[in-house]
Amino acid sequence: MNILERFNQGDRIALSKIISYVENQYPDYRKVLAQLYPKTGKAYRVGFTGPPGAGKSTIVDKLTSLLVNEEHRVGIIAVDPTSPFTGGALLGDRIRMQDLTSREGVFIRSMATRGSYGGLATTTKEVAIVMDAFGKDYVLIETVGVGQVELDVVNACDTTVVVLVPESGDAIQAMKAGLMEIADVFVVNKSDREGANRIVGELEMILDIRRKNGEWEYPIVSTEAVNDKGIDVLLSKISQHREFIIGNHYFEKHRKSQIKTDIRKIVELKIKDIIDEKVLGSLDLDELAESVFRGEDDPYSAGERIFSQINLTNSADKT
Amino acid sequence: MNILERFNQGDRIALSKIISYVENQYPDYRKVLAQLYPKTGKAYRVGFTGPPGAGKSTIVDKLTSLLVNEEHRVGIIAVDPTSPFTGGALLGDRIRMQDLTSREGVFIRSMATRGSYGGLATTTKEVAIVMDAFGKDYVLIETVGVGQVELDVVNACDTTVVVLVPESGDAIQAMKAGLMEIADVFVVNKSDREGANRIVGELEMILDIRRKNGEWEYPIVSTEAVNDKGIDVLLSKISQHREFIIGNHYFEKHRKSQIKTDIRKIVELKIKDIIDEKVLGSLDLDELAESVFRGEDDPYSAGERIFSQINLTNSADKT
Repeated sequence: MNILERFNQGDRIALSKIISYVENQYPDYRKVLAQLYPKTGKAYRVGFTGPPGAGKSTIVDKLTSLLVNEEHRVGIIAVDPTSPFTGGALLGDRIRMQDLTSREGVFIRSMATRGSYGGLATTTKEVAIVMDAFGKDYVLIETVGVGQVELDVVNACDTTVVVLVPESGDAIQAMKAGLMEIADVFVVNKSDREGANRIVGELEMILDIRRKNGEWEYPIVSTEAVNDKGIDVLLSKISQHREFIIGNHYFEKHRKSQIKTDIRKIVELKIKDIIDEKVLGSLDLDELAESVFRGEDDPYSAGERIFSQINLTNSADKT
Repeated sequence: MNILERFNQGDRIALSKIISYVENQYPDYRKVLAQLYPKTGKAYRVGFTGPPGAGKSTIVDKLTSLLVNEEHRVGIIAVDPTSPFTGGALLGDRIRMQDLTSREGVFIRSMATRGSYGGLATTTKEVAIVMDAFGKDYVLIETVGVGQVELDVVNACDTTVVVLVPESGDAIQAMKAGLMEIADVFVVNKSDREGANRIVGELEMILDIRRKNGEWEYPIVSTEAVNDKGIDVLLSKISQHREFIIGNHYFEKHRKSQIKTDIRKIVELKIKDIIDEKVLGSLDLDELAESVFRGEDDPYSAGERIFSQINLTNSADKT
């Protein structure tokens, strides 16, 4: 029995192997995804982001328990930014979450977005597709919202939850421009701590404008995730948001716009490969760099000359 | 008199305008860069990175004073990651640094690497080129080292300084994989605080291996930047590193490798533009997304079909 057959029968090892295959972008991984694609479309994607230490993992953990109790099948993707400055907290969280994997229908995958200091490319969304094809009802994606990749990931979700703690007060001003715009539901976790009311108040003030402009309430949920408090409210708010975006067709529009982005990226990546091979591969870049370094040329003129030699045609135009 | 002439005569407003032109990637900004390029090559680029609050701005500030006293002309680029979670500290730093701009020959530019949550592209290196062409002897680039862009920026520098504080102790483990590799000089700032000796000790231990393998000492400089302590030592270590890399031809090799990367990027970006226009622009992506959403197609097969219609030839091959 091959791996895809085992995958289709619900074999977790096959799932794990296919995820690795996709994550590492092994040859023809896109063909594997093309085969899995027809089985997708059932999983609802919820993204969780917020500063390190806000308790995102605990929230995802507790929420998963609730979902499992309701007989949902849950996939969790923990995106680790591998930032030099976030420290080792994430790894600890991952270990703690392993408890969950013994629960029926739960599958957890931790992903790094960055290597040593190369390669930003992430296949988080592709891993979500694999989990969807495996039959998960929910894919929960957790990430520290500091970089472009993390924001791309969260933006690919259907509902986005931003998790803050009373200590994040100062972050709110800065957030206005960024994550505030992508958040559908806010969580103030560790709400027993000092300053919780203040941060809720500040959020209310900022959200006031958005609430007036739209039909969605942008709820703020207070939680104490470690004590299991408020998680049920959070789940109901996520469910309400789901109904809301399906009802007003935003879900469909958003998914289609994501699909367009995906197609663009797929084509661009393939063309990048062929450029590296056909164009840049045939150049003596060393010699060019030498004359630029000597001041006899400049990279912009050199790039222009190389580009002018490339002829790109689209045979679909001819028809 | 046109703007380039004014630029060539040392007009700061012309410098500022050309930087904006390049930073915003206005039409033909690469042609402007091509015109400026012959004037470049004199500026030495020093990158400063480290966690938020480590005092990078103060260090850059004090170091600039020393350089100005030695009659050097200094350009400063403060790269602001515009992260939702770094708070407003950076802006405060920028305002404080404005004092410096009254010093002869000092020019400060603050750059955001990210918009609201789009566009990772940064033109930091291009801005450094403009400052170089303007006649700066040093370009100091300051960034919070959390993302790929920031690492790219720092990697484009000739000497990289990683700034830590006693509180960064826990970060060192995580740093091993990342910034440790690109650092040439370490600074432990706020060295009067508790834990300073411990962090120096930890760094010494990690650097021990690297020191054995190379000829460079990887110095650790203790500073109290606010009290102007240790900045002279830092400057002398930067100067030593400069002599070291010029002496062993690493400077030349590194610059040439950067030039090659630049040429690649220039060609890739231009090709991306033409793909958007010629290929993706002529497609009915909406229709494709529609059928993918309905489950009749998948993005990977669609991407493959689009790609198969593209014919890319390199006329340089024929000669």
